[in-house]
Amino acid sequence: MKILREDANYIINETLKSILPDKAVRDAVKNIKLPVGKLYLVSIGKAGWQMAYAASCELGEKLTEGIVITKYGHCKGDISQIKCYEAGHPIPDNNSFKATQQAIELVKQCKKEDMVLFCISGGGSALFEQPLVSGEELSDITNQLLACGADIVEINTIRKRLSAVKGGKFAKLCSPAKVYSIILSDVLGDCMDAIASGPAYPDSSTSDDAAAIVYKYNLSMSEAVLDLLKKETPKQLDNVHSHIIGNVSMLCKTVKMECEKRGYETKLLTDCMSCEAREAGTFLGAIAKTYSKSSKPLAFIAGGETVVHITGSGKGGRNQEIALSAAQQIAGLPNIAIFSIGSDGTDGPTDAAGGYCDGETATKLASCGYSIHDILKNNDSYNALDRIGGLIKTGATGTNVNDVAVILII
Amino acid sequence: MKILREDANYIINETLKSILPDKAVRDAVKNIKLPVGKLYLVSIGKAGWQMAYAASCELGEKLTEGIVITKYGHCKGDISQIKCYEAGHPIPDNNSFKATQQAIELVKQCKKEDMVLFCISGGGSALFEQPLVSGEELSDITNQLLACGADIVEINTIRKRLSAVKGGKFAKLCSPAKVYSIILSDVLGDCMDAIASGPAYPDSSTSDDAAAIVYKYNLSMSEAVLDLLKKETPKQLDNVHSHIIGNVSMLCKTVKMECEKRGYETKLLTDCMSCEAREAGTFLGAIAKTYSKSSKPLAFIAGGETVVHITGSGKGGRNQEIALSAAQQIAGLPNIAIFSIGSDGTDGPTDAAGGYCDGETATKLASCGYSIHDILKNNDSYNALDRIGGLIKTGATGTNVNDVAVILII
Repeated sequence: MKILREDANYIINETLKSILPDKAVRDAVKNIKLPVGKLYLVSIGKAGWQMAYAASCELGEKLTEGIVITKYGHCKGDISQIKCYEAGHPIPDNNSFKATQQAIELVKQCKKEDMVLFCISGGGSALFEQPLVSGEELSDITNQLLACGADIVEINTIRKRLSAVKGGKFAKLCSPAKVYSIILSDVLGDCMDAIASGPAYPDSSTSDDAAAIVYKYNLSMSEAVLDLLKKETPKQLDNVHSHIIGNVSMLCKTVKMECEKRGYETKLLTDCMSCEAREAGTFLGAIAKTYSKSSKPLAFIAGGETVVHITGSGKGGRNQEIALSAAQQIAGLPNIAIFSIGSDGTDGPTDAAGGYCDGETATKLASCGYSIHDILKNNDSYNALDRIGGLIKTGATGTNVNDVAVILII
Repeated sequence: MKILREDANYIINETLKSILPDKAVRDAVKNIKLPVGKLYLVSIGKAGWQMAYAASCELGEKLTEGIVITKYGHCKGDISQIKCYEAGHPIPDNNSFKATQQAIELVKQCKKEDMVLFCISGGGSALFEQPLVSGEELSDITNQLLACGADIVEINTIRKRLSAVKGGKFAKLCSPAKVYSIILSDVLGDCMDAIASGPAYPDSSTSDDAAAIVYKYNLSMSEAVLDLLKKETPKQLDNVHSHIIGNVSMLCKTVKMECEKRGYETKLLTDCMSCEAREAGTFLGAIAKTYSKSSKPLAFIAGGETVVHITGSGKGGRNQEIALSAAQQIAGLPNIAIFSIGSDGTDGPTDAAGGYCDGETATKLASCGYSIHDILKNNDSYNALDRIGGLIKTGATGTNVNDVAVILII
């Protein structure tokens, strides 16, 4: 078990080092044809600081001025020429709005010969926002959408229209300057108008779609909001160049490389896992059991982002639920470990990146009086895993490219 | 798509032919040291007829007399020396009780020099039953256990004690004759006291376990029932030899062989999948998408038995839900099919063995006005798949070794 935990820690640490966006940002920045005018930087999302830092290292004094907007605790120091702001996530707060206002003021002064280097990472939807309606009205609409069971595409179709920056509108604010977007994707399938709600990408949803959603769910809205929904979002943005520099598929490749370095023959299962977290854990546990008698060290990788349907009031996250649920399947098997982490270092509203389990986890939990079934029912994976040393803590990592779960068999 | 459906049909048909228990039963029977006295046959479960038929073909007139108890519609003809009964499944009915009484009378006459050849397959728990309490009392207790959330192990711990044949008691009734059990496993992990509730296998649960369950859930029971629960089930059975001749792992191997014959490079994912059906479908769909650009034909196999938590009032089964849920994931991909079947030919309370989907399934459903989300919510997979030709129908197959799901990528 000790070896398995050491291998897991090694693979996690090395992966998180290798997957940092620094090199990719610098490579992307190197290829930019620099503007005749000024070069501004706006860097948003959970990897906002890390991406800005890398860009600044590469560009040095070629950068005129810039802004970082990232989550609380995610700034790792000063960056020359750059103002760093921290703000609320996943619920935007006043600091999100204030920092976004600063970014808008920065790019509004842009001329045709200037360029905005726009670094985008997941988390940007909350961190980068200027609502066109009052906070009360926005949260009332959001609550109506959640209550009626609207899906995330429907919710975003409405929200993009109630924002001054989402749905391609930030790129419009930058014009006539050029916008060079460097994107770290946390959306499975890399749909670019969904990442951070697509502030600099043509919006694929239409006002007609928005009207259909209002009608479908019989939403109650003020005249002012209905007017906003009628305004079309940008469908073409001639001033924008977009470039994805990282995603979950690269995360999986990195993990595979690190597993192989550690001596595991490694197979990728999927890089777009999206089912319920605990069921993914059960499925991964079944795969592990099937190969438990392998004659050589084996690793299986499943990247993606699972979901949790909350039924309890506990504390936890999707990666922790995967580990907990897998623990039940591999109970008693001495040569198997399964772990799962969020690449951003935060799993759910906790300070853990994810969870680890092996053949002893179920017994350890039972001896502390925990039933895995009951923990999952109460969504309390954090407290249970914490008790038996099953949490994986990395701190904010500087990247955000979904999650990865790994089976190790020795 | 046509090629994929043809390949699926080929793989299903050839697998179901190859996996029939006939050869394994005949091989097992060949190895029996025949008794000096009489040789009786008792064959129970969904494969009861098929196994008895194979045994009879091998043994001919060496068989003195015998009984088959199988599900309605599962007898395929007369077998010489054998009485064939059909009865209720999954809920036992009067025909189950009457046929079981016949079997008890048959073995009660056994002498030391006789032998009972006992063919066991899944479904036997319902088909082979003589309750020691009234039907009303048994169903009251079962309902209490279900209502309080007791798991299947707990339910069986109680039920074995309220039965004249379960939990090793049928082997006791056969003594002093020897019992030679040939078992087709439909229990993941092949736990022999669980298959058909283990009529001829030492019971691993104890009367203390039963008492703890009554206490845990505060069950209300008559004095007579409480007395039955105190009677210990057999913990050692010296007259029994048990031999497993088929299980889900053999099913997976057979499917793998048939996929390879058809030109697919084939990988086993697991032979003990046990999660929620629709989540398994989503997971399998994610694996398929990940490999959709494969340069050669690929197949992935997942055997096991998933579960469905019923939330609606529709008609369907776990294999049909797997296909339907996978359809959503592979929508639009022209080179992928996913199908899932129950090896017994009955998926849930339907006349289909399972379901098939490919890249066109989601569009076809949408054009019939079906939303996959809504169908799953109503557990109505049968009617939706029926409408678009997505059902797989095989009829009763003659075997019962769990389910298998297959991804085909061309």
